[in-house]
Amino acid sequence: MTRRIDLVADLGEGFGDWRMGDDDALLDVLTSANVACGFHAGDPRIMDRTVAGCVRRGVSVGAHPSFPDLVGFGRRAMDLTPHEVRTDIAYQVGALSAFAAYHGTRVSHIAPHGRLGNLVAVRADYAEAVVDAVSRIDPRLIVLAQDGELANAARAAGLAVAIVGIADRAYQDDGTLVPRSEPGAVIHDADEIAARTVRMVREGVIESMGGVAIPIEADTVLLHGDNPAAVQLSRLIRSRLEDAGVTIAPLDPDELRP
Amino acid sequence: MTRRIDLVADLGEGFGDWRMGDDDALLDVLTSANVACGFHAGDPRIMDRTVAGCVRRGVSVGAHPSFPDLVGFGRRAMDLTPHEVRTDIAYQVGALSAFAAYHGTRVSHIAPHGRLGNLVAVRADYAEAVVDAVSRIDPRLIVLAQDGELANAARAAGLAVAIVGIADRAYQDDGTLVPRSEPGAVIHDADEIAARTVRMVREGVIESMGGVAIPIEADTVLLHGDNPAAVQLSRLIRSRLEDAGVTIAPLDPDELRP
Amino acid sequence: MTRRIDLVADLGEGFGDWRMGDDDALLDVLTSANVACGFHAGDPRIMDRTVAGCVRRGVSVGAHPSFPDLVGFGRRAMDLTPHEVRTDIAYQVGALSAFAAYHGTRVSHIAPHGRLGNLVAVRADYAEAVVDAVSRIDPRLIVLAQDGELANAARAAGLAVAIVGIADRAYQDDGTLVPRSEPGAVIHDADEIAARTVRMVREGVIESMGGVAIPIEADTVLLHGDNPAAVQLSRLIRSRLEDAGVTIAPLDPDELRP
Amino acid sequence: MTRRIDLVADLGEGFGDWRMGDDDALLDVLTSANVACGFHAGDPRIMDRTVAGCVRRGVSVGAHPSFPDLVGFGRRAMDLTPHEVRTDIAYQVGALSAFAAYHGTRVSHIAPHGRLGNLVAVRADYAEAVVDAVSRIDPRLIVLAQDGELANAARAAGLAVAIVGIADRAYQDDGTLVPRSEPGAVIHDADEIAARTVRMVREGVIESMGGVAIPIEADTVLLHGDNPAAVQLSRLIRSRLEDAGVTIAPLDPDELRP
Repeated sequence: MTRRIDLVADLGEGFGDWRMGDDDALLDVLTSANVACGFHAGDPRIMDRTVAGCVRRGVSVGAHPSFPDLVGFGRRAMDLTPHEVRTDIAYQVGALSAFAAYHGTRVSHIAPHGRLGNLVAVRADYAEAVVDAVSRIDPRLIVLAQDGELANAARAAGLAVAIVGIADRAYQDDGTLVPRSEPGAVIHDADEIAARTVRMVREGVIESMGGVAIPIEADTVLLHGDNPAAVQLSRLIRSRLEDAGVTIAPLDPDELRP
Repeated sequence: MTRRIDLVADLGEGFGDWRMGDDDALLDVLTSANVACGFHAGDPRIMDRTVAGCVRRGVSVGAHPSFPDLVGFGRRAMDLTPHEVRTDIAYQVGALSAFAAYHGTRVSHIAPHGRLGNLVAVRADYAEAVVDAVSRIDPRLIVLAQDGELANAARAAGLAVAIVGIADRAYQDDGTLVPRSEPGAVIHDADEIAARTVRMVREGVIESMGGVAIPIEADTVLLHGDNPAAVQLSRLIRSRLEDAGVTIAPLDPDELRP
Repeated sequence: MTRRIDLVADLGEGFGDWRMGDDDALLDVLTSANVACGFHAGDPRIMDRTVAGCVRRGVSVGAHPSFPDLVGFGRRAMDLTPHEVRTDIAYQVGALSAFAAYHGTRVSHIAPHGRLGNLVAVRADYAEAVVDAVSRIDPRLIVLAQDGELANAARAAGLAVAIVGIADRAYQDDGTLVPRSEPGAVIHDADEIAARTVRMVREGVIESMGGVAIPIEADTVLLHGDNPAAVQLSRLIRSRLEDAGVTIAPLDPDELRP
Repeated sequence: MTRRIDLVADLGEGFGDWRMGDDDALLDVLTSANVACGFHAGDPRIMDRTVAGCVRRGVSVGAHPSFPDLVGFGRRAMDLTPHEVRTDIAYQVGALSAFAAYHGTRVSHIAPHGRLGNLVAVRADYAEAVVDAVSRIDPRLIVLAQDGELANAARAAGLAVAIVGIADRAYQDDGTLVPRSEPGAVIHDADEIAARTVRMVREGVIESMGGVAIPIEADTVLLHGDNPAAVQLSRLIRSRLEDAGVTIAPLDPDELRP
C-alpha cells in the first residue's frame, strides 16, 4: 500500500510578458514541477524564475520538452523523425539544466509535454528517442510517463520511471482513459477528484466509469494550476492526502529504478 | 615565447536546410570550435552533428551564444538588460551542453557571438552577466575574449581566459583594431595574413598600420570558413605555423587561469 | 473647439493561448483599434478574431507593427537599418490587410508599437522608412503619431496624420511628457484622467505639472485595456466625453490630410 | 493543342543571411515565381528583393504559403485545423501583397508549399480552407495545383486554376506520380526531362513508366533552381520549348477561370 506520493504540475508556461496559471500558489502545494523549456512555452527569464522558485521551496525541477510549436502550445501533432525528437529533447533538457546549475540544483526528471507526451506513450520510435537522449545525457533523470511505450522503453534501458496518476479523468474498464471527446471524460467535482486521488494513492485503485476497481500504481499525481479553481483543487487534494496519512514527498530515483 | 597555439573558428552556423561555410573542411584544421546555439544560427540537428564532428576529430566544443536574432544573424545590437543577457547565455550554453554530454564530451569554452561579442568587450554590465552565468553554471569554462571588459571581469572572477588573436585585421598604433569602416581595415593577402599569424604566435607581436610592433599575447587564433578561399587560408595558416615549429593544440584551462 | 474625437487602444496583443487585456470589453468603448501583427504579439488566429470583432462593432482596424521581438514584446530597442524597418513594416501591414479583406474592410491606419513607436518620433530615418512604406503600399492609411519626426515626415509626404493625445501622463511646461522615471509621470486617479481628457478634447489644452495650459490638438485619445481597472477607466472617459457633448467617432482621413 | 505555357519555380527561399538557389539566374528563365512568405523561408528583406526582381523582369509574383515550420522548411506534416490553415495562409498572402504593392504590382497566384502543398491535394478540408481564404481576400488569385482536391474546390468556387506539370517525375499508368520512395521516381537525365516537357506542352501527354501515354493538361511547368545543374536544366527546357514553337508567357487568369 503506497503511503507516500509526489505531487507534480506543469509550471513556467508563460512566454515573455504572458503568464499562464498561478505558479507561486502551486509551488506551495507541489513536490515536483514540469518546467517548460522554450518550445511550447517558457523563455530564459521565466525558466530562471521558475527554477529559482522551485529551489526556494524544495520542489524538484523537471524538464517538460515539447514539439517546437510556440503558437500551438505544443498541442498539435508534428511529423518529426525520431532523430528530430531526440535532438529537440536534448536541446530543451540541456537548456533547463543550465538554470538548475545556476540555482544550485539539477534537473531531476523529464515529462514530455502535450502532443509529444501523448505520442511517446504509443509510438515506440519516439519513446526510444526519448530514452536514447536521457540515457546518454543524464541517466539519473526520472522518466515521468503513463503506462505505455515510454514507460516500457525507459524501464528496459534501466532508467527510473515514475507513473503519473490522473484523478480528474474517467477511466474505461480496460484501464485506459475515456477519450476527451466523450461525455464524462473529465471529472469536474472537486470532492470526487480528491476522493479518487486518496483512494488511488492509499489503495492503488481507481474506479472506472463502469464501476470496476482498476489497479493503478501511481508514483506521482498530476495537478493543475491554470485557473484559481484548479489551484484551489490542488490544495484540497494535498490536504485530503495528508489527512489520510499520506506523506507528500519528492520522487526518489533509487526506488523507481527497475 | 609562445610555441603552442589553439586554432578556433565559428562552426554550425546553418539553420534547418541552410548551410554556412564548409565545417567538415575546417574541422581538419581547428583545435577548437565556437558552436552556434540556436539564437543566431544552429538548430538541434546541426548542433548534434557539429558536436559529433568535433568529438570525432578531437576538436574542443565551445558555446557561441548570441542575441536572440535569427533573421539578423546576431549582428544587430539589441538593448537587453544584463539579466536578459545572463539568462539568454545560460539557455544557450545549457542547450549545447546536452549535445556535448550525448557525444561523451563537455563544453570547453564560451565565446559570445557577433554584436553581443562586441558589446561584452566594452560594456561592463554585459561582461559581468557573462561571468555570472559562467561562474555559477560551469566555472571550468574558458572565456574566449579580446582584451576588454569581458577578459577583465572573467579574470577578476578567477575564470580561465583565452585571448583571441586576429591576424586578418589591421591594428592601430595603440593596439586596437582599425575600424571596419576605414580603408585597409581588413587584410586580404593570404601570405601576409599567414606571416602576421606566425609572428604573432612566435614573437608575440603584430605590426600596426603605422609600422609599430605591438605586443599581443594570443592564446588562440580566429580562423574563418565562410567560403572556399577562407578554408584554404585557414589551412595555409596552420601549415605555416607548423613549419615554424609551433605546436597546434587545444587550450589548457589550467594554464589560462589567473 | 474640437467636438469630435476618436478613441483608440491596442488590441489583439495575445499570442497562441496567451491573452492580454479584455478586448471584448474595449471594443464597446473604442472607435479605432491598433491590432498587433505578429512581431511583438498577435498570431493569425488572434488577428482574424480581432479584425472580425472590430468589423462587428464598427471599429476601425489599424496596423500596430513592431520590432521583431516576440519575447521582448517589442519594447527593446533593436538597431535596425531603415531598410529593415521599412520591410518589417510592409510585412506586418500586409499581413493585417488580408484579415481586413477577409472580413470585408480595409486597414484604416498605422501606429508603430512600443520601442519602434518611440523611435519613429525622434529618428528621422525611421520616420522616413515608415512614410516610404505607407506611401507606396497604401497612401490612404492614416498615420497615428505624437508630435515628432513621424508626424512631420508623414505630413510632408501628403499623408493623413492623426495626433494621439495621452491623458494619463503628466506633461512638462514645454509640452513634452514627463519621463516615466520621474515621480508623478503617470497619473493614476481616474477622475483626474477623465477630466484632463475632456478638457484636452473640448478646449485643446492640457495642464502641465507646473500648471501651464499647454495647447494640444489631439485627433484621437489613447485608452488602455490591460486590466479591469483600465477597462473601467476607458468606459468612464467615454461617458464623460459624451456627457460633455463630444461626439465619439472614427477618424476621417479626408479631414486629416495636410 | 497548347502552344503557350507558363514557367514557374520557387524563389526567395533563403532566410536572413542564408541563401537557397540562384534566384537571379532563374528570373531570366521564368514567367512566374512562387515567393516564400516567411513561414518556411523568406524574410521581409528577401521578399522585398525577390518581388523587386520579378517586377524588373516581368515575372508574375505568386504566394508560396507554408506550414509555420522554419526549421523544417515546411516539409513536415503538422496537424493544423482548417481554421489554422486558412488564417496562416491569409497572413502569408497578405504579407506578400504589401511587397507587391510597394513595387507596383499585385500578387497573381497562390501555390501552397511543401507538405501543405501535398495535403491540399488530398484533404478536402484543407483545400476548402485555401479556397475560402482566396475567395474572400482576393478572388483574382490564380490557384496553382496538381489535379486533386484543391483544383476541384477552387474550380467549384469559380476561381482560376492552373494545373502544374511536372516533367522530372515518373508517372504511373493511372496518371499519378511514382512515389519518391520507389526506384526511378525522379528522372535525372536533362535531355529526357526537356523532351518530356516539350511533349507535355505540345501534345498534352506524358509517358508513364509502363509506356502508356497519359493525357495531361498543364498550364505551367515547375522548374527548379536549387543548384547550378537545375538552373542549367531550366534554361535547356525553356530553349527546347521555344525551339518547338511554344510561346513562353505568364498565366492569364481569364482563360483559366471555369
